Amino acid sequence: MRIAELSRESRVPVPTIKYYLREGLLHPGERTSPNQAQYDARHLRRLKLIRALIDVGGVPVAGVRELLDAIDAKGQNIHEAMGTATHATFGEPDAEMSEEQRRGMERVEELIAERGWLGDSRRARMLVANSLATLYQLGEDELTTLLPLYAETIERIAEAEVRLVTGRPTIEDAVEGAVIGTVVGEQILAGLRHLAHEHFSTVIGVVDTGPKG
Amino acid sequence: MRIAELSRESRVPVPTIKYYLREGLLHPGERTSPNQAQYDARHLRRLKLIRALIDVGGVPVAGVRELLDAIDAKGQNIHEAMGTATHATFGEPDAEMSEEQRRGMERVEELIAERGWLGDSRRARMLVANSLATLYQLGEDELTTLLPLYAETIERIAEAEVRLVTGRPTIEDAVEGAVIGTVVGEQILAGLRHLAHEHFSTVIGVVDTGPKG
Repeated sequence: MRIAELSRESRVPVPTIKYYLREGLLHPGERTSPNQAQYDARHLRRLKLIRALIDVGGVPVAGVRELLDAIDAKGQNIHEAMGTATHATFGEPDAEMSEEQRRGMERVEELIAERGWLGDSRRARMLVANSLATLYQLGEDELTTLLPLYAETIERIAEAEVRLVTGRPTIEDAVEGAVIGTVVGEQILAGLRHLAHEHFSTVIGVVDTGPKG
Repeated sequence: MRIAELSRESRVPVPTIKYYLREGLLHPGERTSPNQAQYDARHLRRLKLIRALIDVGGVPVAGVRELLDAIDAKGQNIHEAMGTATHATFGEPDAEMSEEQRRGMERVEELIAERGWLGDSRRARMLVANSLATLYQLGEDELTTLLPLYAETIERIAEAEVRLVTGRPTIEDAVEGAVIGTVVGEQILAGLRHLAHEHFSTVIGVVDTGPKG
């Protein structure tokens, strides 16, 4: 198909497609003349994936390139692909830590030891440590009492997710599933959490404060 | 304290503090002369909260204002405060839905009915529906088989969270806890999910493909 059709099918404007081509996010079409190229189903699929990562996952363009490289890389494993998804979404950890961040990091290490989790991603540790540091700074230490429940429930989710993608027939399918599942799954979990908050704040609110007048 | 000290204590640069004052995110200090004002512990606390919402939660400035208004509003309840937190983080839902979005929305409604969740937030529904639509578009329907597990586990988390904040002595404490817990909790859950992915992709990867050579 020509670029105009690719644009219609993907609902991505032609200038944006050209931008992705220039940035190397989308592989070039097959040249049919100096000004024309043909695109196929793989371009369409890739374009949908780019939009999903940017629009749904809020991943910056540089992060999208990293994720796509992870999907395209030969000999990549799930472990590395999931690490890349974390990397692309969260950016670099802080070099110097505040007192609260150090306290947060200690709590994270403690939690990881309690669960017996393997792995050494400083980035994911730092994300949790920074969030804990924020709670400490705001005097919201009480909210950190939820950590053991968070870790226990998230563990069930993560195990099911990893089992699902590692069960796929090829390593390419598995890696693509790991990247997409990591990014899009986060949005689904956030949305469901809000729906469940809405439910319990209705139910528990009524119990605690009496029926609404 | 003077603005310079407020800046040192909060680690927020003076021009940024002045920006928050102009934008009405931070309430004015007490004027001691035409060019000077005094700030107190409430300013420091508010400043930390603003930075937490922006830096940790990735909430845009307009969203921060909405969240702060929710915290400051009198007669606000937890239910409304959590709704505001969702609103400020996610923005407006799409007016017109694609076929995949409609399919996603049907699945969301089905899931809500299965769990017996009360509430009518179109925004949180739309977030989940959009994420599902993305998976359908990418041919990743298989990943949606995780939805019942997601909903069941997230329900446990949300119930504990709502119980914790509704148990607080004043409604103001409860609302502030709801807003902060919603925004910062999301980051903590995302980070823990990555740590657990790392663990299981190590453990399960080894089981499925044999020991690394």
